[in-house]
Amino acid sequence: MSDVKLEECREHIRSQLDNVVDFWLKYSHDTVDGGFFTCLGRDGSVYDKLKYVWLQGRQVWMYCRLYRTMDRFHKPEILEAAKAGGEFLRKFARVSRASGEWKCAFCLTSDGKAVKVQRTLFSECFYIMAMDELSRVTGDKDMQLEAEQMMEQLIHWVRVDSSGLGRPQLPGDVPTNSMAVPMMLLCLVQQLTEGQGQDVVQKYKELEQWCVQQILHHVQRAGTAILENVSVEGTELPGCSGRLQNPGHALEAGWFLLQYSAERGDEKIQETAISKFMELPYQCGWDKKHGGLFYFLDVDGHCPTQLEWSMKLWWPHCEALIAFLMAYSQTKKPELLERFFEVYDYTFTHFPDAQSGEWFGYLTQEGKVALDFIGGPFKGFFHVPRCLYMCERILDDLLANKDTTV
Amino acid sequence: MSDVKLEECREHIRSQLDNVVDFWLKYSHDTVDGGFFTCLGRDGSVYDKLKYVWLQGRQVWMYCRLYRTMDRFHKPEILEAAKAGGEFLRKFARVSRASGEWKCAFCLTSDGKAVKVQRTLFSECFYIMAMDELSRVTGDKDMQLEAEQMMEQLIHWVRVDSSGLGRPQLPGDVPTNSMAVPMMLLCLVQQLTEGQGQDVVQKYKELEQWCVQQILHHVQRAGTAILENVSVEGTELPGCSGRLQNPGHALEAGWFLLQYSAERGDEKIQETAISKFMELPYQCGWDKKHGGLFYFLDVDGHCPTQLEWSMKLWWPHCEALIAFLMAYSQTKKPELLERFFEVYDYTFTHFPDAQSGEWFGYLTQEGKVALDFIGGPFKGFFHVPRCLYMCERILDDLLANKDTTV
Repeated sequence: MSDVKLEECREHIRSQLDNVVDFWLKYSHDTVDGGFFTCLGRDGSVYDKLKYVWLQGRQVWMYCRLYRTMDRFHKPEILEAAKAGGEFLRKFARVSRASGEWKCAFCLTSDGKAVKVQRTLFSECFYIMAMDELSRVTGDKDMQLEAEQMMEQLIHWVRVDSSGLGRPQLPGDVPTNSMAVPMMLLCLVQQLTEGQGQDVVQKYKELEQWCVQQILHHVQRAGTAILENVSVEGTELPGCSGRLQNPGHALEAGWFLLQYSAERGDEKIQETAISKFMELPYQCGWDKKHGGLFYFLDVDGHCPTQLEWSMKLWWPHCEALIAFLMAYSQTKKPELLERFFEVYDYTFTHFPDAQSGEWFGYLTQEGKVALDFIGGPFKGFFHVPRCLYMCERILDDLLANKDTTV
Repeated sequence: MSDVKLEECREHIRSQLDNVVDFWLKYSHDTVDGGFFTCLGRDGSVYDKLKYVWLQGRQVWMYCRLYRTMDRFHKPEILEAAKAGGEFLRKFARVSRASGEWKCAFCLTSDGKAVKVQRTLFSECFYIMAMDELSRVTGDKDMQLEAEQMMEQLIHWVRVDSSGLGRPQLPGDVPTNSMAVPMMLLCLVQQLTEGQGQDVVQKYKELEQWCVQQILHHVQRAGTAILENVSVEGTELPGCSGRLQNPGHALEAGWFLLQYSAERGDEKIQETAISKFMELPYQCGWDKKHGGLFYFLDVDGHCPTQLEWSMKLWWPHCEALIAFLMAYSQTKKPELLERFFEVYDYTFTHFPDAQSGEWFGYLTQEGKVALDFIGGPFKGFFHVPRCLYMCERILDDLLANKDTTV
């Protein structure tokens, strides 16, 4: 692979990132009530005004990260938008309960009234990501304290007592280790400890190791498959839920593990991340006929019961791009760069929308656009720009070191 | 249209119904723990043992209805299976709460332990349908009393106080008239009053009229569209939820209204049922390019946010067949029989599976099988046999009266 190809790739990714940022800066800001609209058509028109807390938190995080770490995005309008989003979240995201406890809403009206509260912890996760990153650019210590306090609440729900999430305790609802939970917590630990002193690192050290172990429990079937849901003891669960595979999620967990291994020089975790969390989901998840990654699969080859199982979604492709490029940058193994370019070719010939400069999110198995909006209840300013941002930075490093020719 | 064509159609439907009943009798009975498996592959193998309460109740209802009203299904094995299903439901479906109240579970383990409780009332609806119909074949008065008592609870949740459903009261969660609720209640009133004396009919009369009014509130946009969710005052709601159309649901409501109008000789409701609840969803919902009914649409032409919006599902086609054939049998208008045969041709060239004798449930927009199982978490022994049963009976009447040539 020549440097010229990597250069071209970087320039392409760089210009894609510019287009994507432009789209959201131009169309997503609610200048009346604060926060962000995320249900956006190709022309930027708002087709629904509901504000999804996951997506509010993610957009604040992404704006701040770009502002803080990339010179060309260190612009007042990005900082101001992030601050306005953070203010909206702090004002409206928490919902008080009769018990005196609180929970973050999943969805708010455009003026901040709670519409729905999920009985999971993901709204809180993205709230914490937003507050921590925002506090880094504003220097607001209260905000960082709030992020840390909410993190304590999350840890309590996950490791001590989940009843505060509001799910009734049912005899048939066996405790499950769902990939999403340790993944998100690991991501939050990496967020909260980045660039911090040893006191903060030590505070989260045991939690981080627990997260890694919980993620590794998803390697099943004698190391031949990553399963999305396993028992808390790390064994396979019965039925569809136990056999479910989510290749995009496994790949995302893979690059979280690579980041962990890189910090510690832990070659064993690096090897597992690549051989188990990247190669396996690619082998089972890549559609040999039409290209692209399936959304869900059943490890025994049954048809998944999720109606969208065979669709090609944008975000697994974003995660795959980050995973394979990071794996290549750490190992310099040429086959990992080849994988990256296979995913790259499919992704950039299928997902970008020339009209908006952003990406479509949902394709049929055959690669036809199935849902033609740019933003929706689950697609905001996050996976696409995070992927482009991560890949651009990795490519910068690779090209700066100039030892990439393979 | 000649009698010969209707005869052929009846014979085809009759043999389809026989095949479908055979499949479920053969493969779905859990002879160990009771109740029914519904996650069944094409070869009848059980790919997941969870028992979904909606589907347990529906299967009991359908078996009993066939046993009670069709000679060829008046067989001990069908009665025994229905009784075993009813016993499973009575033993396991209700979940007690800390408050002393109860709620029906949504999903149970194969041995009856509650896995999930929904914060809606549909599990209860299908429980009531099952108990009422089962009491009609067994003569069990306790069971009928239980159905009536649960019905009182449902009415209380819908019309007096919904807090028992367990949804937190949130300021942005405005009360909504969702088509499913008055439809289901109307269906239950028709079930509970069928063939009963005037005391029972009178008891539910006001509720029945309320249901019809609530359904009619879904006629919106100056009579040009049926919308799935409206405000309790009967006005359009903002955003995607307010613009949502579900053609299959509208068609199902249509034939519920036709049954109501037939009982009363109410020509105005009959006319509304046909022109609004059948013609409009057919006009907007039929895919002119590939045939078949879309699952969801947006009245303003935006792309729905449901990933499966363009898929062709079995049940809207079942409801459309019943709706147009019933409308034809009541009015003898030839265009309604033509519609029936348009839906019939698409349905029988796309959904039936020769291997199993049953139907696939989920096709892509283009009509390719997208999920290749026969039964799943939402597809049990209900829409297909109910459709075939209703159509066979209507065709019996049409052919017996012999005035069908148009």
